[in-house]
Amino acid sequence: MEGFADRLIDRALARRSRVVVGLDPDIGRFPAFLRAQLQQQPTEAQLEEVVVAFNQLVIEATEAEVVAYKPQAAFYEQYGLAGMRALQRTLTLLRERGLLVIMDAKRNDVAHTAGAYGIAWLAPRHPLFDAANPWQVDALTLNGYLGSDGIVPFLEVNPEAGLFVLTKTSNPSSGELQDLFLWTEGGERGGTVAEKMAELVHQWGQRGVGRHGFSNVGMVVGATYPEMAGQLRRLAPQALFLMPGIGAQGGSLEGIVAGAGPQGVGAYAASSRSLLYPFRPDELADAHWSDRARARILAAAQQLRQAIHARLMAV
Amino acid sequence: MEGFADRLIDRALARRSRVVVGLDPDIGRFPAFLRAQLQQQPTEAQLEEVVVAFNQLVIEATEAEVVAYKPQAAFYEQYGLAGMRALQRTLTLLRERGLLVIMDAKRNDVAHTAGAYGIAWLAPRHPLFDAANPWQVDALTLNGYLGSDGIVPFLEVNPEAGLFVLTKTSNPSSGELQDLFLWTEGGERGGTVAEKMAELVHQWGQRGVGRHGFSNVGMVVGATYPEMAGQLRRLAPQALFLMPGIGAQGGSLEGIVAGAGPQGVGAYAASSRSLLYPFRPDELADAHWSDRARARILAAAQQLRQAIHARLMAV
Repeated sequence: MEGFADRLIDRALARRSRVVVGLDPDIGRFPAFLRAQLQQQPTEAQLEEVVVAFNQLVIEATEAEVVAYKPQAAFYEQYGLAGMRALQRTLTLLRERGLLVIMDAKRNDVAHTAGAYGIAWLAPRHPLFDAANPWQVDALTLNGYLGSDGIVPFLEVNPEAGLFVLTKTSNPSSGELQDLFLWTEGGERGGTVAEKMAELVHQWGQRGVGRHGFSNVGMVVGATYPEMAGQLRRLAPQALFLMPGIGAQGGSLEGIVAGAGPQGVGAYAASSRSLLYPFRPDELADAHWSDRARARILAAAQQLRQAIHARLMAV
Repeated sequence: MEGFADRLIDRALARRSRVVVGLDPDIGRFPAFLRAQLQQQPTEAQLEEVVVAFNQLVIEATEAEVVAYKPQAAFYEQYGLAGMRALQRTLTLLRERGLLVIMDAKRNDVAHTAGAYGIAWLAPRHPLFDAANPWQVDALTLNGYLGSDGIVPFLEVNPEAGLFVLTKTSNPSSGELQDLFLWTEGGERGGTVAEKMAELVHQWGQRGVGRHGFSNVGMVVGATYPEMAGQLRRLAPQALFLMPGIGAQGGSLEGIVAGAGPQGVGAYAASSRSLLYPFRPDELADAHWSDRARARILAAAQQLRQAIHARLMAV
């Protein structure tokens, strides 16, 4: 199997897309026709069905426009075992269609335990049985606060898998820790905490650099902070950037341009709410609901794909 | 419902214990009699049964000796849906016995998503159905790298729940980021990244201080770094310390003493491998396996409880 970075970049070039669609099921925002199914049959089994049906609709609508899908673990965990069953079925759907999956779980722990998370999400095989691992994804987001011990075990479970380490996050309070300057041995002002994380990511990524010159170890950089994206690109020239924040969080295309680097393939816009829910909750209750939801979601994904492509071509 | 900090401290005083038992199922280390059951019937359902049986054995052996249980999410996720079903049954067992549960999941995300994790693990009710939340625990570990936006949503879901924010972790590489000094506005050397996190934890905890003077927002501090524990105790006098690292990771009782504070109730030793697996994998295959495993695990828990109690009394 080729490394994640090469597989992602090949698709990005073939599809002229840098869009990663978040799969964040929030049933309160589903089209009315889907919520009605759950109201008629409010059971765990029906909850699972409705989540899978919505994800399938999103995937079918968007797969020609996007590079990868990014299920967010929290939105499945909130629905308990029914949510986890829906997640497993969603991962199966994505795999059957040959689509790339970045699991957004931001996992982190000390060495032995980090290895168990790696087995959960990145191992090709079940840890005990002679069977494929139904939760295996192509890439996983991680939190690097624990340092190397918390990252290397994932590389050991599957060196071809992608890792995206939180570096500069998209949220308003990310600067409380990440923007603080470090003090250097010489008594001077050094880089920020986020910049230090970028240096660590650069080190962790040295063993997994592919033929496009990018590493399997990338970072999460909020599209909401374009000036930081440029600085982090310089510190970690081989790291792929997964950039949330376009859309609902107010991030701009300038962040994508800054992260994209000279070849234009280094940055990927991860968008969830603005792509998934381009309708009001009371809409789409009639007989043509499914086609209309699909058309709206496709239009939102196309628009984002084209806007990024045009902006990158203009650089 | 009283706040988590008061409930934990009341039990600690009543039981003269500061021990938190990790529930980290690692089937390769289970007693031979349990592994034999799985080998005879290698199915997902039997995997679930064996994990629940081991956890039940540990809980029954230790419940009089310990203050709380700490299931580690990674060790359930590694077994997929069977693992998550075993986790849910374990949480039910613990709740039925009135035991306190600290879910060690180190979750973290931006505001909207952090709220979904809060719903998953801390909400009393199911988000959609009129039913109790079977995954509700008393406290949850979090990673604070994202700042306030990543913590406050959990407080909003359930202000009585406990939160333990990673501050100085027990692993060898924790210093790569956490021990770096920050630069102050005046051009001087400030505190470390971990110390800054302790200050943030202190702020986040202001709204949930209970009658013992401790907050529902605590921190994870490795028992492997006793000198840091004392310093962090001064910076966050109201924060409970969850202290992993005693046992397999080489942490010392001095860390617990340093974290305990003047009343001796501020620090809790979280131990997993050395309590759960006090036997070799080839042992305990005979007819009296269950009683023997129980006796060994009880002895390990008693020994740790007594060692901490004696050390705290000697201060």
